[in-house]
Amino acid sequence: MLNVYLSGEIHTDWREQIIEGARGLDITFSAPVTDHAASDDCGVEILGAEPNKYWHDHKGAMVNAIRTRKGISDADVVVVRFGEKYKQWNAAFDAGYAAALGKSLIILQQPDHDHALKEVDAAALAVTRTPGEVVRILRYVLSGAL
Amino acid sequence: MLNVYLSGEIHTDWREQIIEGARGLDITFSAPVTDHAASDDCGVEILGAEPNKYWHDHKGAMVNAIRTRKGISDADVVVVRFGEKYKQWNAAFDAGYAAALGKSLIILQQPDHDHALKEVDAAALAVTRTPGEVVRILRYVLSGAL
Amino acid sequence: MLNVYLSGEIHTDWREQIIEGARGLDITFSAPVTDHAASDDCGVEILGAEPNKYWHDHKGAMVNAIRTRKGISDADVVVVRFGEKYKQWNAAFDAGYAAALGKSLIILQQPDHDHALKEVDAAALAVTRTPGEVVRILRYVLSGAL
Amino acid sequence: MLNVYLSGEIHTDWREQIIEGARGLDITFSAPVTDHAASDDCGVEILGAEPNKYWHDHKGAMVNAIRTRKGISDADVVVVRFGEKYKQWNAAFDAGYAAALGKSLIILQQPDHDHALKEVDAAALAVTRTPGEVVRILRYVLSGAL
Amino acid sequence: MLNVYLSGEIHTDWREQIIEGARGLDITFSAPVTDHAASDDCGVEILGAEPNKYWHDHKGAMVNAIRTRKGISDADVVVVRFGEKYKQWNAAFDAGYAAALGKSLIILQQPDHDHALKEVDAAALAVTRTPGEVVRILRYVLSGAL
Amino acid sequence: MLNVYLSGEIHTDWREQIIEGARGLDITFSAPVTDHAASDDCGVEILGAEPNKYWHDHKGAMVNAIRTRKGISDADVVVVRFGEKYKQWNAAFDAGYAAALGKSLIILQQPDHDHALKEVDAAALAVTRTPGEVVRILRYVLSGAL
Amino acid sequence: MLNVYLSGEIHTDWREQIIEGARGLDITFSAPVTDHAASDDCGVEILGAEPNKYWHDHKGAMVNAIRTRKGISDADVVVVRFGEKYKQWNAAFDAGYAAALGKSLIILQQPDHDHALKEVDAAALAVTRTPGEVVRILRYVLSGAL
Amino acid sequence: MLNVYLSGEIHTDWREQIIEGARGLDITFSAPVTDHAASDDCGVEILGAEPNKYWHDHKGAMVNAIRTRKGISDADVVVVRFGEKYKQWNAAFDAGYAAALGKSLIILQQPDHDHALKEVDAAALAVTRTPGEVVRILRYVLSGAL
Repeated sequence: MLNVYLSGEIHTDWREQIIEGARGLDITFSAPVTDHAASDDCGVEILGAEPNKYWHDHKGAMVNAIRTRKGISDADVVVVRFGEKYKQWNAAFDAGYAAALGKSLIILQQPDHDHALKEVDAAALAVTRTPGEVVRILRYVLSGAL
Repeated sequence: MLNVYLSGEIHTDWREQIIEGARGLDITFSAPVTDHAASDDCGVEILGAEPNKYWHDHKGAMVNAIRTRKGISDADVVVVRFGEKYKQWNAAFDAGYAAALGKSLIILQQPDHDHALKEVDAAALAVTRTPGEVVRILRYVLSGAL
Repeated sequence: MLNVYLSGEIHTDWREQIIEGARGLDITFSAPVTDHAASDDCGVEILGAEPNKYWHDHKGAMVNAIRTRKGISDADVVVVRFGEKYKQWNAAFDAGYAAALGKSLIILQQPDHDHALKEVDAAALAVTRTPGEVVRILRYVLSGAL
Repeated sequence: MLNVYLSGEIHTDWREQIIEGARGLDITFSAPVTDHAASDDCGVEILGAEPNKYWHDHKGAMVNAIRTRKGISDADVVVVRFGEKYKQWNAAFDAGYAAALGKSLIILQQPDHDHALKEVDAAALAVTRTPGEVVRILRYVLSGAL
Repeated sequence: MLNVYLSGEIHTDWREQIIEGARGLDITFSAPVTDHAASDDCGVEILGAEPNKYWHDHKGAMVNAIRTRKGISDADVVVVRFGEKYKQWNAAFDAGYAAALGKSLIILQQPDHDHALKEVDAAALAVTRTPGEVVRILRYVLSGAL
Repeated sequence: MLNVYLSGEIHTDWREQIIEGARGLDITFSAPVTDHAASDDCGVEILGAEPNKYWHDHKGAMVNAIRTRKGISDADVVVVRFGEKYKQWNAAFDAGYAAALGKSLIILQQPDHDHALKEVDAAALAVTRTPGEVVRILRYVLSGAL
Repeated sequence: MLNVYLSGEIHTDWREQIIEGARGLDITFSAPVTDHAASDDCGVEILGAEPNKYWHDHKGAMVNAIRTRKGISDADVVVVRFGEKYKQWNAAFDAGYAAALGKSLIILQQPDHDHALKEVDAAALAVTRTPGEVVRILRYVLSGAL
Repeated sequence: MLNVYLSGEIHTDWREQIIEGARGLDITFSAPVTDHAASDDCGVEILGAEPNKYWHDHKGAMVNAIRTRKGISDADVVVVRFGEKYKQWNAAFDAGYAAALGKSLIILQQPDHDHALKEVDAAALAVTRTPGEVVRILRYVLSGAL
């Protein structure tokens, strides 16, 4: 059985594609909260409003970290997807965090980001371009079938 | 004695400002190679050319990782600077790597990046705006003087 | 599935409130022995009386540590509740122990203790005021729903 | 050579007594910042004022943690002193943190706190009543002489 | 659920007494091979005879270590029983091995060995005199009931 | 229950012999992908062709490492088989990797390789000559029966 | 440079023989307190008398553990000497402790104890009969000269 | 300062070339014993003859492991050289051992071994063809100069 954590970009359905594609494989998937508004506001929603945006964000990021750290710590494989837009520093942070813990890292990104991601890719065991490639790797890792 | 690794942005003289400001303190600083061309080409320069840009970058990133991992592993404190421009995913990767190793993390960035860096900041013990603030923290940590 | 250890104050029903509130979530809760007399006397009850109160206490604290260490070691999340009264050094000790093991820490305490608990809070991912807030965090961490 | 971290109460001169008593022994002592005002205000002094006292405290506690974690991590022996007054939850937190890292723990406290500290004492290798006892232990550990 | 490894003396039925006494508790017990002849000869029986008694013993001890290390590594609690006779250095070795791994250690021994076992006892959370005391501790640790 | 990883030579049916021989024992076996062509080509099949044979091999080796590291990390016992032919450096690499992680190592090899494998054997708990000997060890470790 | 901890029997001059024999090698030796009376009484001498011999011993063993753990933790090589007499369970405990930490273990003992020490020897990289053999090993390890 | 361990082939002067080439750099080099006869016979020379060649080799390999493990554990960088001839399983074992400890790995080998070494190379940060390339990497890592 494989634990796979799906980190990074939250604006497209790449997670669903991987999970759907991996149907039938003995994999438990986990992921951060992908509801953008909930993820941004969870801290102040639960723990009380903050007039200062910095602390507003901070409280949310801390609460989300409970889920994120659990997900990465329990994972055998961490897939990190970088999308076309946005800074996505949390994705790169997760990749570094996972690498330091010795997790097997799979990066999912487009070629135009290759140069900017070269240090991240250097810590990965596979750099993929499509969710389908991730699925094929997971299937091969579990079953040995190409 | 404190080991401090200075990660991130390589286009301004923030490292020099910190090292200069910390003169007289019992600190050993280390950093990645900040000569941009050398950093990009070290792999192929030493190990042979690659026609494919991806492997060109990969070989360089791997060689640089020897220095980076040593620097972070030996550090008590990792300072990560995010500049105004570029993706800087390697900076965020280093921050995640350092966090997972339990290093004390100091982030140096401008307020307009606060929201994008909230997960990174949430792993830090201090978020600073100027090299001078980093120096004051290092001085305080070593001497107790404000 | 989440393992949650509930450490600290044993005079109110905050544990029951959390467990009740979290009904239906995939959580395994553990806690120290909360029967005050049993907790104080377990050492001498099982291993023989001690005329010296120090060793009386010591034997009990050692036996309780078997349960406490297991609970914290197995936990993903450690909730530490500080009540209004008493020294509660064991609660702060558990918080430090959990922090050093990299556990996600949630503190439950009233605002009048904020200053005295600032070092403990600084190691936490959330500082809560009511059992209900703890429940909301656990639900959000597991389901992503606010 | 022995690294000894002196944690806890900051209102009496117990640290000076130990350091003075241990003169001539091959020991490097470290400690938190014991200037109470500096310790409370270091965060906002360096990183900017906070209108909310909670975040004021939080910023300071985080900066102090850089020093504290370094001190405990580098230590062979952690001495934690509990005074007569105040909550001193940071002292108990440090004791727990040190215990989880496997550090040799020496507690310095008066008998009237024995019951309240029984869980902390249970993690210690010595419970002492005076700075002189701590010094005698350190001398014995290094030299074998009583 | 508790994993308990029962190390040490193999000539009396103390393991059976504990397992029987703990019936109904959520405990998984493991132990070394207690068939003395099998334990002594397993190496040469499986891997071929050795004319030299030292290597005869060595091969057996190595094969037994596969089981012993697995048992101790998986355990939450390691109980080590010292009997009245024999050197029992393997029991003391297991106690040291378990202590270094941070396992909760319970020693089962008679008072006449207290002085000789003082260093071993100093690493334990409980020193017991009868299998019944071990059972009471395990029951208390799991259920909180004395 | 025992997790056993079967590393090394892939040209004979030694894995099947062990798995068959161990039928009825509470063992979960894992292994690398033993389909030679799939193992060699998995990287380029999934991630795209490489004109340079070195990178062709590299991509495959990285993908296979996801499976290999998971298998070794999860294992209690790692069996490494060295065959009569080929360099088999990956087998020796796995043995070193497993040894550094503290896994119980069983080597399966013929006497003519004893001298060349002496450093590898020195890290093992058993050096066996046939799959049947491995099975007997596993049975003994689990059941105590010779 | 090599750190060598010399554990075990304290009635003969084997430590002096090794230290003398290793003169000129780049080795730092450490050892437990070998003054038998001081070692037995250090706890009560420093921390106050105990009417109960068990706690008398316990306090001493705990204080000695500060030195012992430091010595073993800092060591590259742990030499454990078993003498002809006494139980010497602390020696076997140290051997187990060192083995679990991955230290290189050298045992020094006479052949008549081979069978009783087989589990301890199985964790060692060398079993020696004289202090001179230990010296020869240390010299070879450092210089490569036989 | 960099600690570099030079593992593998012992029949050519590649170590001397690297050490000579790195003259002036702040590097401490270590290596296994490269005197082939001493390395083979150290066990029986020091600890007594063995009629059985297997145990003859075993005793030597164990003694050599004291030096090897120290060298790899202390290293920041492990260079492993595979020569043209021989099985060299100890070199691959060292590479696996170093990889599992998270050391930066540099492989030195000729292209005709690329396929056989692909799993080893996949764990490395650089694959080099000449001692000069290793020197250039070490110089770059320390000084940033190409």
